[in-house]
Amino acid sequence: MNIHKAKGFRHALNKDNHPKMCLKDVRSAINERQTEVLHKAFVGFHPADAARILEPLNGSELANFIELIGPPRALEIFEFLDFQKQKETVENLMPEALAQLFANMSPDDRTDLVKELGTDFQDRVLGLLIHKERQDLFKLLTYSEDQAGAYMTTRFASVEPDYSIRTALDRLRIQAPTKETIYYVYVVDDQLKLLGFVSLRDLIMSRPEVRVGDIMVTNIISVQVDDNIEHVANKMARYDFLALPVLDTKGRLVGIITFDDILDVIQREATEDMYKLAGMNVGEQISSSVARIVSNRLPWLFLNIGTSLLAANVITTFGGTIEKVIALAALMTVVATLGGNSGNQALTVVVRSMAMGDTTGQRRSLIILKNIAVGLINGFTCGMVIAAVSYLWFDNLWLSIIAWIAMTANQIIAGLFGSLIPMALKRFNMDPAHGSSILVTTLTDIGGFMIFLGLASLLINELMAG
Amino acid sequence: MNIHKAKGFRHALNKDNHPKMCLKDVRSAINERQTEVLHKAFVGFHPADAARILEPLNGSELANFIELIGPPRALEIFEFLDFQKQKETVENLMPEALAQLFANMSPDDRTDLVKELGTDFQDRVLGLLIHKERQDLFKLLTYSEDQAGAYMTTRFASVEPDYSIRTALDRLRIQAPTKETIYYVYVVDDQLKLLGFVSLRDLIMSRPEVRVGDIMVTNIISVQVDDNIEHVANKMARYDFLALPVLDTKGRLVGIITFDDILDVIQREATEDMYKLAGMNVGEQISSSVARIVSNRLPWLFLNIGTSLLAANVITTFGGTIEKVIALAALMTVVATLGGNSGNQALTVVVRSMAMGDTTGQRRSLIILKNIAVGLINGFTCGMVIAAVSYLWFDNLWLSIIAWIAMTANQIIAGLFGSLIPMALKRFNMDPAHGSSILVTTLTDIGGFMIFLGLASLLINELMAG
Repeated sequence: MNIHKAKGFRHALNKDNHPKMCLKDVRSAINERQTEVLHKAFVGFHPADAARILEPLNGSELANFIELIGPPRALEIFEFLDFQKQKETVENLMPEALAQLFANMSPDDRTDLVKELGTDFQDRVLGLLIHKERQDLFKLLTYSEDQAGAYMTTRFASVEPDYSIRTALDRLRIQAPTKETIYYVYVVDDQLKLLGFVSLRDLIMSRPEVRVGDIMVTNIISVQVDDNIEHVANKMARYDFLALPVLDTKGRLVGIITFDDILDVIQREATEDMYKLAGMNVGEQISSSVARIVSNRLPWLFLNIGTSLLAANVITTFGGTIEKVIALAALMTVVATLGGNSGNQALTVVVRSMAMGDTTGQRRSLIILKNIAVGLINGFTCGMVIAAVSYLWFDNLWLSIIAWIAMTANQIIAGLFGSLIPMALKRFNMDPAHGSSILVTTLTDIGGFMIFLGLASLLINELMAG
Repeated sequence: MNIHKAKGFRHALNKDNHPKMCLKDVRSAINERQTEVLHKAFVGFHPADAARILEPLNGSELANFIELIGPPRALEIFEFLDFQKQKETVENLMPEALAQLFANMSPDDRTDLVKELGTDFQDRVLGLLIHKERQDLFKLLTYSEDQAGAYMTTRFASVEPDYSIRTALDRLRIQAPTKETIYYVYVVDDQLKLLGFVSLRDLIMSRPEVRVGDIMVTNIISVQVDDNIEHVANKMARYDFLALPVLDTKGRLVGIITFDDILDVIQREATEDMYKLAGMNVGEQISSSVARIVSNRLPWLFLNIGTSLLAANVITTFGGTIEKVIALAALMTVVATLGGNSGNQALTVVVRSMAMGDTTGQRRSLIILKNIAVGLINGFTCGMVIAAVSYLWFDNLWLSIIAWIAMTANQIIAGLFGSLIPMALKRFNMDPAHGSSILVTTLTDIGGFMIFLGLASLLINELMAG
C-alpha cells in the first residue's frame, strides 16, 4: 500500500460504512512495517474509531502496530481497545514498548489490565515501572471491582492554597500533559488533606494576583476510596461534576474519578441489572458465540427447571380436583401468569430505585405496604374481569368466584414478594437483582396454583354442581 | 430564627441525616422574609442539596424563597428542583423575578419547562424575553423529546480561526459567565459553519501568538439536531467528550450537548427499557402514590389478561387429553415457564444491545439463527432433565419423550421470537422494548401448550398404555 492508496483507504473508512473492507491493507502495511503508511491512514481518526477498525487483528498484529506507530498515538488507540484485545496485545509487545505503554497508561486502566494478566507477567510489568508508579499500581490493585478506588486516577492537578492564580496557572501548564483533567484543580495542604477546589474556568476569569485559597470552593462533594461505585455514579449524576475527588480514611486526596469512567459504569450497571432480572449472567453480548450464549443462559434455566417442578408438584397434588373440573387447568395458568407479571413489575421498580439511590429515606415497610395495596386493587380489578370472562366461557358461578378470590390473593402475594425479596437480599448484602426474578415468579406460580386449586378442592361439590 | 440559630440549622442539615427536621425553620424564615437568615442557612450548600431540602415546600413558598434569595443563587437551586415543583414555582413568581429567572436559565431546561406550561402562561413568559432569547426558545420548542435539539444548549463558546490564542482567551474570559462550558471552544466561520474545536487545555498550553486555526482539531465528532438522543448518548459514551456539537442540516453549529444532560438521558433510557421489559409504563417511582402505581401497572395487566386467556383457550381445547393423563397439566406449565424465561433472555440481550448501539453491523438473520441454535441446545439439554425427572415421577416413558420434544421445540420458538420481535418492531420504527415481553411470553406459552398437549393428543393411546 503506497501513500496514495492510504488516502483512499482513509476516505473509505471515514465514511463509516464498511470499516472491515480495508483490513487487509492495514494488515499488509503492518507486516511490511510501513510506518508512514499506517500513520497517514489513521491521521485524524478519533482513537475510538481507530480501535474499532483494528479490533479484528490478533494480538501479535496489534503489538506490531503499536510498536510501529509509537507513543503517544499508539497509547490513545490502545486505551480504546476491547479489554481482551489489550491483554493479547501486551503479551506480544517487546519490553521497551511495553514499558512505554504501561508508564503512560492512565492508572485506573493500567490496574484493570494488570489484574487480568498472569502473575509471571505481572512481575515483569512491575519491574518495568518506576518506583512511584509501582507504588500507585500496588495501591490500586487492592481495590475490588465495585469500589471507587478501582476507578480513580491518581493523575489529578493540585495546587496549594497560598499560590496566586498566576502561579497556579503556570503550574497547571506544566502539570497538564500528565494529568487526566486540568478543568478541576484540587487545593491541598502539605499533608495532602483536601481543602477545596477551583475550576479552570474560575482560574482564568480571576485576577492573576488573587490567592487560590480565596476563590476556592470549600464545600466539597467527595467520595471515599471504599465507596461502592454505584453510589459514586449516582452522586456524579446528581451534582453534575466533571470529576469527584476520592479521599482515603484520613481525608487525604488520593485520586479523582472522571465523568467518562462513570458514563461507562452507569451503562454497565444498567445492563447488569437488566440481565439479572431476565435470569441471565452478564457475560453476553449480541456478538457472542452460541457456546458462550448457552453457557450464559443455561445455568439459569436449570435453576428454573427446579423451581417450575416445585410449582408442577402443587398441580399434581390437586390432580383429582382438576380431573373433575378440567376448566381449572386453563384458569390456573391465567392466575399464575398475571401473578408473575405483577411480581416482576414491583421487583423492577424496587431494584431500579435501589440502583439509582432513590430508596434512601424511603421506609421499607411503607414500600411493601404500598405494593400490597396495589396488589389488592389490581387483583380485585383483574379478578373481576377474569371472573366475568370465565362465567361467560364455562357458565359456572362458583368457578368465577374462586378465580376472583385466587386472583386477588395471588396479586397481593406478588406485591409482597416483589418488593420484599430485593430489599431482603440487599439487607443481607446480596445483589437485589440476582435470581430475584425467578424467586418471585416461583412464589407467585406456587401461590396462584395453591390458592386457586386449594379453594377449588374445598368447594369441589359446589363447583361440580355449577 | 436569628443568625445564631441559622448556623446550628445549617450544621444539622449538613450532616445529611434528617434534612426534614428543620423545614419548619426554613418555612418561617420565608414567611417572615428573613433574607439574610436564608442566605446564611444555605451558604456553601451544593444547589442540588439545597433543592432537595426545599422540595417539600409548595409552589408559593418556593416562589417567595426564589424572590428573597435572588439571582444567581436562586437560579442554581431552581434548576435542581423537580420538574413539577419548577412548574408550581414559576406560576407563583412575580413578573420581575420570572423574567430574571427565564432570562438566565439554560436554554434546554427553559424549553422543557415552557413546554409544560399552559399556553396563556407561555405567552407571558415569551413576552418577558429579549428578542434573541425568544427566537432561541421558539427554535428549541420545535424539537421532540427524543431529538438531540431538545437537549442542546445554545450557549456555547465560539471563536474564529484567525484569532490568536491570546485573543481567543481574552474573548473566552468575556463569554465565560454566560456559557454552559468553556472547556471546549468551537471554531466557526462567518456563516457559523463548524470548522473545528480547541479545548481550553490546549489553549492555555499553547503560545499566545499562535493562530487558533493552527491548533484546532478538525476531525470533528458531531451530531445532527434531529438525531435520536439515544444515538447521541452512545456517541458521547464511546468518545469520552465533555460536549458534542450539534449541527443543523446545513452544517451550521446551532448548539452543544453537555455530558451532564447525557448522564441523565442514559439513566432515564435504561430505566425506561427495564420498565417496558417488565410490562409497565415509565411514570412510576419508588415514592409514587398507590393510585399512581395502579394506573401505571394495571393497563399492562389487562393486556396480559387477554394474552393469558388465549393461552388458556389452547389448554381447554385439549381438555379431553388432560382429563385422561392429569400429569400433563403439571408438565405443561414447566414447558411454558421455561419457554417464557428463555424468550425473555433473548429479548433482553437484543433490546439492550439495540439501545447501546451494539447491533450496528450485526446481521439480523445471524442474530436470529444464533438464538434458534441456542434454543435447540438449551431445549435439548433442559428437555433431557425434564424427561428424566418426569420418568422417575410418573413412570411413563411416552410422557417423558413428549416432554423432551415439546421442550426442545418450545425453546426454539423462544429463541426465534425473543430475537425476532424486538428487531421487527424496530424495523417498523416502533419501540423494541414496548410490549415485547408480554408478546414473547404469550407466544412461548401458546407454543408450549400446543406442542406438548398436541403431541399428547396424537399419542394418547401410547401415553395411556404408559
